[in-house]
Amino acid sequence: MPSYARAPGGVPDSPLDRVEELLRGSGHAAPIGLHRGRTVFGPCARSRTRGSGEFGFAPDEQAPPGGLPALRAALARAATARRQSAVGPEQVLVTEGATQALAAALHAILREGDEVLVLSPQWLFTTGLIRAAGGVPREVPVFLELGAARGFDFAGAVERAVAPRTRAIYFNSPNNPTGYRLDGSRLGALADLAERHDLWLIADNTYESYDFTREGFLDIGAVGATAARTLSLHSFSTTYAMPGARAGCLISPPGLTEPLATWARHTRRSVSTPAQCAVYEALRTPREELDRRRDHAAAAGWLADSTLEVPHTTASGGLYTFLDLSAWGDGERFVHRCAEAGVGLAPGRGFGAHCGHRARLCFTAAPWQRVAEAIERINKIYGEGIDEH
Amino acid sequence: MPSYARAPGGVPDSPLDRVEELLRGSGHAAPIGLHRGRTVFGPCARSRTRGSGEFGFAPDEQAPPGGLPALRAALARAATARRQSAVGPEQVLVTEGATQALAAALHAILREGDEVLVLSPQWLFTTGLIRAAGGVPREVPVFLELGAARGFDFAGAVERAVAPRTRAIYFNSPNNPTGYRLDGSRLGALADLAERHDLWLIADNTYESYDFTREGFLDIGAVGATAARTLSLHSFSTTYAMPGARAGCLISPPGLTEPLATWARHTRRSVSTPAQCAVYEALRTPREELDRRRDHAAAAGWLADSTLEVPHTTASGGLYTFLDLSAWGDGERFVHRCAEAGVGLAPGRGFGAHCGHRARLCFTAAPWQRVAEAIERINKIYGEGIDEH
Repeated sequence: MPSYARAPGGVPDSPLDRVEELLRGSGHAAPIGLHRGRTVFGPCARSRTRGSGEFGFAPDEQAPPGGLPALRAALARAATARRQSAVGPEQVLVTEGATQALAAALHAILREGDEVLVLSPQWLFTTGLIRAAGGVPREVPVFLELGAARGFDFAGAVERAVAPRTRAIYFNSPNNPTGYRLDGSRLGALADLAERHDLWLIADNTYESYDFTREGFLDIGAVGATAARTLSLHSFSTTYAMPGARAGCLISPPGLTEPLATWARHTRRSVSTPAQCAVYEALRTPREELDRRRDHAAAAGWLADSTLEVPHTTASGGLYTFLDLSAWGDGERFVHRCAEAGVGLAPGRGFGAHCGHRARLCFTAAPWQRVAEAIERINKIYGEGIDEH
Repeated sequence: MPSYARAPGGVPDSPLDRVEELLRGSGHAAPIGLHRGRTVFGPCARSRTRGSGEFGFAPDEQAPPGGLPALRAALARAATARRQSAVGPEQVLVTEGATQALAAALHAILREGDEVLVLSPQWLFTTGLIRAAGGVPREVPVFLELGAARGFDFAGAVERAVAPRTRAIYFNSPNNPTGYRLDGSRLGALADLAERHDLWLIADNTYESYDFTREGFLDIGAVGATAARTLSLHSFSTTYAMPGARAGCLISPPGLTEPLATWARHTRRSVSTPAQCAVYEALRTPREELDRRRDHAAAAGWLADSTLEVPHTTASGGLYTFLDLSAWGDGERFVHRCAEAGVGLAPGRGFGAHCGHRARLCFTAAPWQRVAEAIERINKIYGEGIDEH
């Protein structure tokens, strides 16, 4: 083998795979895996054999790099309704899930060494994706602070992190892993800040259909004049419970259409046509069904909140609560102990450099009876550990 | 919109989209598009609703980044048979088509500014993919020379192009767009050269099932000790006529498993599970059926070869012949004239800087009667142009 391959340079391995190995090694016949983000819901649509031309495109044909025209048009209509300002089909790039949408966004806007402020804690792979795109992630702890202290100066914390090489702000709301969200006033503050410093806003809307509040989900592209600087990511895997399909989309300002299409063409050509057909079908899922799923998630979150004896965040959206293990000891060790007891949790460190004493629990990853059973074991381990101290 | 987005820097747009527009503008009710690489064959398998666990994995679940374990194992067995030396499942990365396999390979081995020798003419997007990965493509014209002159010093031409920053040699055999191929002795020369200069070999095997010769397709990974420096790309879209599925794979030496998995995880997570299930099924296509398709392609190539009145390459594999329009004038203008007459050809320039006076014809892109009709029109336009000179 020739003398070198590109070093992955700080791009992390998946800690979730390690949890999986621990669970397999635990000897439990049916471990309860709450480490991965998933739901118990069935997919809103499936890839299946379709009649030729059912979507104006035979499923055996390769789709254009941007996506099936009918699907792009439908997604543009949905974005127009959400933002209450016109979004054209050419602003929609159909991607292999939100992961690829973020990779595309970063490759379109970053030059080598540019910084991205990451409102932290954040999705597990965010910093690795930024590094893989040649950028430098700078974590800005805000979500736990927002949850803990009413007087927290959110806008000030973000503003102080802006540096000469800062090009973008990434945030994920409702937040994975805390379950907290940015309300209208926080989004307004971000919009103002982005405007003043001429920054891109990368809004990871993966959990848009799981906002438990009365205000409901807010798209930052609807706030003021931000649409011209907003790149928003959407995950059909999450919204329509079809992780197997691997489909999502990126909505971007018109000026990015060309660099994005070029990037797409030179990394993967186009997204699987049957997967796109399935998404097109999933878009017809009745609002009531999505609401039912959101309510189910909210109830599962409530169950976790009211039974956990470990300090944790109270989710107002998303699929997670973030456990605080600082009184117990190291988060990594807690995850190991739980795995031995047949319960999978995600170690906190990957979600932010300041989260080593934490662990993430996905409360929708199993039927609620099973989640309750897992929480019982978690409480026991936590109680024993506390007694030791 | 903030002040800059990454400039696509020399990454070209698709000239095939422009041909499509020209054809649409031509006013012909049923234009004959021979510009894209495609076949008239039906897909060997389709994405369809499958029983849970039919492949040890529910199609609604997200697959691991490397691919479905059963599929990787099957592809490793096939590679082992082809190379007659052991290839393990961890050496197989399932990708969104050969495009993504090439992108992954380049990202794994290149550092910014590294050079890749591209045996030219080459697949349309090769140089753009190399640039998108931070590399510098250097075209080495060999295929037309191999076809034209018996005494051509192939090894010498490649060797003279090796420079201090050269890291890899890319080649596509059977070749798109010429239809020429590298025989065992040429592959041996490349293997020797790669060994002496410590280079990676990137073998684009997209047309492996369309080799018309008695010798048949040769995998360079089977030559000498090259397996340790070979990255080979495979396209299921082409081999199994399922362009809609977007699936292919990359086979690499064991030492690249980690950087490749990391790259995959940070650009697209995993390939659509239903698409992978369909490939798994397509792998069971009887050899006789693939041979029948190859013979059909060879016959279509023979038909084109014997009726074209334009100088052209005689394909010994692949789906194309490369027209030589130097006696007629500019290749681009010829493509325009043909589009006006309702025939789609791909302009030559994109396949190599020295190919501006050429155009590519895909002889399997339409039923043979239609290809014959297109060739009649092409001959007429060529004859008229020659008369004008």
